[in-house]
Amino acid sequence: MAYELFYWPGLQGRGEFVRLAFEATKTPYVDIVREAGPGRGMGEMMSMLRDDSLVEAPFAPPFLRVGDQIIGQTANILQYLGPRLGLAGKDERTQIFTHGLQLTIADLVTEVHDSHHPIASRLYYSAQRNEARKRSADLIDYRVPKFFGYFERVLTNNPSHKGWLVGDALTYADLSLFQVIAGLHFAFPRAMTGFANAYPRCATVHDAVAALPAIAAYLQSPRRVPFNNTGIFRHYKALDRASPF
Amino acid sequence: MAYELFYWPGLQGRGEFVRLAFEATKTPYVDIVREAGPGRGMGEMMSMLRDDSLVEAPFAPPFLRVGDQIIGQTANILQYLGPRLGLAGKDERTQIFTHGLQLTIADLVTEVHDSHHPIASRLYYSAQRNEARKRSADLIDYRVPKFFGYFERVLTNNPSHKGWLVGDALTYADLSLFQVIAGLHFAFPRAMTGFANAYPRCATVHDAVAALPAIAAYLQSPRRVPFNNTGIFRHYKALDRASPF
Repeated sequence: MAYELFYWPGLQGRGEFVRLAFEATKTPYVDIVREAGPGRGMGEMMSMLRDDSLVEAPFAPPFLRVGDQIIGQTANILQYLGPRLGLAGKDERTQIFTHGLQLTIADLVTEVHDSHHPIASRLYYSAQRNEARKRSADLIDYRVPKFFGYFERVLTNNPSHKGWLVGDALTYADLSLFQVIAGLHFAFPRAMTGFANAYPRCATVHDAVAALPAIAAYLQSPRRVPFNNTGIFRHYKALDRASPF
Repeated sequence: MAYELFYWPGLQGRGEFVRLAFEATKTPYVDIVREAGPGRGMGEMMSMLRDDSLVEAPFAPPFLRVGDQIIGQTANILQYLGPRLGLAGKDERTQIFTHGLQLTIADLVTEVHDSHHPIASRLYYSAQRNEARKRSADLIDYRVPKFFGYFERVLTNNPSHKGWLVGDALTYADLSLFQVIAGLHFAFPRAMTGFANAYPRCATVHDAVAALPAIAAYLQSPRRVPFNNTGIFRHYKALDRASPF
């Protein structure tokens, strides 16, 4: 059965965490909204979102369709794909720890989003610029160090010492960590100066993921939407600040 | 093996979603911080949080310890407990959908928290009162209707029509939905006027959970921490407003 990914066009957003899992493992998938033809395109996604009769209705994109099963929520999709694509440990305990890391990354992603939209997602950034400046300062000075201090500790304590977050092999949590670090570099280039010195193991995960042949090829391809100011990671000069590291 | 729950004392917070799963099923558990004796109390939690050598380090409370396994993140804990306590469907597909609902509830919980702390978790409410007023207005007028419109649809479309979110039996997602509705009534009594009329199926889940004998007994017991203004759901008169329903 084909894996069909539904996500908004024109931005990486949360859909990108799912794309990275497919791309890293060279798993065929259909990026429904970005492809043309019957049963594809924006209309297909909107008809799913508006379908009042769906039993497994998703709350919001991204969601995945596999046959007639619909799976919503990024971390849930990755958990489903993990064992199927070889991106999660083999035993339940390892999979649970991997999922916990993913949920912590998801919390950070929400905080990054809210740094430019602290009052309301539905309003423009320009309508909440002053509040965004305050929240971004807190994100950069306190929250980013807290999250990456944690991930650095997890990497340090992993007994297999292969450089990945869990066990001795790549998991979807490593792919997501790469994406968050790449996104923060785009959004806050000044603040992220010194990141690699402060969190060397996290920086190594970023570089190792970027160097995976399948990911390196993907990042050069037109399938990788460039970072831009409609996504989660946005570069507004007014929100960037001196590096806390 | 005993289930040991680690969570901050004095507030329901995210730990409450886990407590409800234990209480609804009359499953024995140790609420580590709230009990006295060797290996219990606040010191035990702090020593876990400060242990630099833990492989499965949790990012933050709540976390669960089962033997030597540590499970972090509320939704992850509930997913682990679900099949073990009979609070999730039997097949993988049902469990995935239940987990997706829980993650959507978790998103709402974060938004409710941020309605009184839109700028920084580490600062007092009084330092972000003006921003909180704006974010609460958006929460009440737009986000609460969006989330509960979704849950109402899920309840409507559940083919077994037993009143629960998934299949024909209680799951941890129903317990969490109860908790969020109860919390919103505490935080925003004016705004929640008319909730039961606007979202009758959601209100029915709330009432049905509250009426479960084990939950009814729990809610009357000293084990249930009362809602208060140190938790996720806080009642500040300045943030409540006219009902949008």
